[in-house]
Amino acid sequence: MNNPVLVEVLRGEAVESRHAGAVVAVDADGRKVLALGDVKRRVFPRSAIKAIQALPLVESGAADRYGFGPEELALACASHSGEPGHVAVVERMLARLSLDEGALKCGVHWPIHQASAQALAHAGGMARAVHNNCSGKHAGFLCLACSIDADPTRYVQPSHPVQRLVRDTLEVLSGASLPPEVCAVDGCSVPTWALPLDALALTFARFATGARMLPERAHAAARLREACTTWPWHVAGTGRFCTDVMTLFGARLFLKTGAEGVYCAALPELGIGIAVKSDDGAGRAAEVMVAAALDRLLNNDVDSAALEPFVRPIIRNWNGIVVGGMRPTEAFKP
Amino acid sequence: MNNPVLVEVLRGEAVESRHAGAVVAVDADGRKVLALGDVKRRVFPRSAIKAIQALPLVESGAADRYGFGPEELALACASHSGEPGHVAVVERMLARLSLDEGALKCGVHWPIHQASAQALAHAGGMARAVHNNCSGKHAGFLCLACSIDADPTRYVQPSHPVQRLVRDTLEVLSGASLPPEVCAVDGCSVPTWALPLDALALTFARFATGARMLPERAHAAARLREACTTWPWHVAGTGRFCTDVMTLFGARLFLKTGAEGVYCAALPELGIGIAVKSDDGAGRAAEVMVAAALDRLLNNDVDSAALEPFVRPIIRNWNGIVVGGMRPTEAFKP
Repeated sequence: MNNPVLVEVLRGEAVESRHAGAVVAVDADGRKVLALGDVKRRVFPRSAIKAIQALPLVESGAADRYGFGPEELALACASHSGEPGHVAVVERMLARLSLDEGALKCGVHWPIHQASAQALAHAGGMARAVHNNCSGKHAGFLCLACSIDADPTRYVQPSHPVQRLVRDTLEVLSGASLPPEVCAVDGCSVPTWALPLDALALTFARFATGARMLPERAHAAARLREACTTWPWHVAGTGRFCTDVMTLFGARLFLKTGAEGVYCAALPELGIGIAVKSDDGAGRAAEVMVAAALDRLLNNDVDSAALEPFVRPIIRNWNGIVVGGMRPTEAFKP
Repeated sequence: MNNPVLVEVLRGEAVESRHAGAVVAVDADGRKVLALGDVKRRVFPRSAIKAIQALPLVESGAADRYGFGPEELALACASHSGEPGHVAVVERMLARLSLDEGALKCGVHWPIHQASAQALAHAGGMARAVHNNCSGKHAGFLCLACSIDADPTRYVQPSHPVQRLVRDTLEVLSGASLPPEVCAVDGCSVPTWALPLDALALTFARFATGARMLPERAHAAARLREACTTWPWHVAGTGRFCTDVMTLFGARLFLKTGAEGVYCAALPELGIGIAVKSDDGAGRAAEVMVAAALDRLLNNDVDSAALEPFVRPIIRNWNGIVVGGMRPTEAFKP
């Protein structure tokens, strides 16, 4: 089955490109409040579930044991841009563990934030593991490994206690089976499990509400939500969609991107979770899809006005001239 | 109509993302030898037609008048990576015109080539118009403007003699009408006209063969093909698809990418032109589509083996681990 076209890219008045995809929003009991496209197809959630991957870190007491506060928790849930402020928090996390960045197994890349990358090059620096957008998540994994006395050099292996805790947490919250056949390797070398898109939305409905969770887990979810919505810059960075939209909504919205066109969101006030997949893996399309879904679900003029620049972003060229834009298709109409 | 899925992106053994699109190959009389998806839908060719945009530069005698040789012609057809070697040729073109880079109206961006951008930042440099991937094309437009005594400050306007010559050339070669309603503004501020995908392929079948062209234009096409296939690094840059694939095939293949998932190719030995559009605008998918189309059309084991890394590229993560790959779908099977 082909998924419907959900986003159009315009050049002038003409449609230049089209993005198909699927969007689903459910409550904590799995009741669908919005469903577009094939919402049963399994998708790799990638970095969109970093907050779920961080639940064992908090509910086990590991984060408290090593003095991780809200900023450190936000970094554990982050795909950060590698700006100096992000790097400083990750280095603080490693220092609390008495580890250096050689312990990070995420691999090395230059900061996503272009000006930070240029400043680094200008100063004669090089890309390091702390600049990797996943370095905060990996520092969180290391914290959990240290806390449970597991080998801190093998924490990316699927059989490692840290990844087994992550997998079990995702399986319980999503209600989806996660056998080895649906496990692959993520960009930062940890396992990623494909699960049905609606099960991913259910995971975030529970993360939003604490419903159908043990009290320690519900409390951990609330702490992580509060950390990320209080420190949205920590979760992504300057000019990034997650940061800008979470800044608008404060505690009302948790939002997280994953590679290959995935977005997850949690709306505590409505008690629902949202999961989005742009079939082609395009982040730009997934952003419009999740913004359009939020607009429809929140369904009020004030939020609509705030979301407008994200639902219908403008495209400018290298001279700053408006050359087009993006828009959701009719599929989003009630 | 939804176009078929033509490319799948794998993570582990599972399909993670899917790219729909259209592919067409025709001979110089417009006879189709391959057609997948809706090949009548208009697409903006963007930078994929830079060689067509350069035809008036050569056939008018302007390039010869200002001493542009094969390297300069290849740069006029290029979406270059802004490496020092590219910048040097563009600066030479401007010097021949007694202009400085302030004459370029393409806008400013950092070199696409990451190491060149970092070296520039390290040296305390800034992004300049010569680094813009379109700066060679713009230097070509300036050359034509100077040669025909047209205002060199307004050469990006649709009504300027340079852009009228470009438009007329494209209209004649493609056989498509190009009214103002299908004109939009490109990333570098020049006009771009949407035309049916099969008309774009026909344009390149004629560019490949010189068939149904006046002799001066056929000669100009042959010179531009020879320039680009002799200097493939000039047309794109280090590690780029156009450069690497043209280097493999030499004079047998002209190939050019455009933004938003467009590719055009000319195969003189078969007398055909190819046009590709990934619906979602993804360059990675358009690369696999054009490689798979070449593989099918050339239809021999030696070329198949050479094309294999482009037809089925491997995806590695930040640690160099193979995490997946890309592949064309069954739609490409004869």
